[in-house]
Amino acid sequence: MKLLVIYDIGDNSLRLGTAEILKDFGLARVQYSAFAGDLNHNRRDMLEISLAALLRRHRGARSTDRIYLLPLCDDCFASAHFLGERTHFPDHRVDRWKVV
Amino acid sequence: MKLLVIYDIGDNSLRLGTAEILKDFGLARVQYSAFAGDLNHNRRDMLEISLAALLRRHRGARSTDRIYLLPLCDDCFASAHFLGERTHFPDHRVDRWKVV
Repeated sequence: MKLLVIYDIGDNSLRLGTAEILKDFGLARVQYSAFAGDLNHNRRDMLEISLAALLRRHRGARSTDRIYLLPLCDDCFASAHFLGERTHFPDHRVDRWKVV
Repeated sequence: MKLLVIYDIGDNSLRLGTAEILKDFGLARVQYSAFAGDLNHNRRDMLEISLAALLRRHRGARSTDRIYLLPLCDDCFASAHFLGERTHFPDHRVDRWKVV
């Protein structure tokens, strides 16, 4: 199942650390603060544990930091729309583009 | 059905205009560049037309600007996880919070 992760993180180091974890789990950057990719349930759980541990332990963490992990089933993904000339969302079947 | 809208927009005026349209359609800000709320199919279509028109016409638009409209069915939303002390995601049934 696809997973979308979006985040608001104030500290540069913590934000970079978050992005590194997301890359390590095979997710691809789809916007500046958004990653997505295909992860099974176990890997999603492991990713969440890793991100929660980083948020809990990092000295740069702030009360306003937030990370959302949002699964997208096939039906939801099929209904997603992307506006812009350089949109990208990973799909092992086909890359999806829509030019405004 | 819930709709999540995330965006990367470089120009301040265009970014503000995008946020204004999202608010006008009743969506709530859930992160700095992310809004969400409940919209039926017709309203989702109207929102997309409005955002696409803004991107097409605004003199501050850049080729790197992008707006993703992502529907979340009840099952996907039920599986979503939110990390952080001040997470927020609109839900007419109950506000969802999770403290790390």
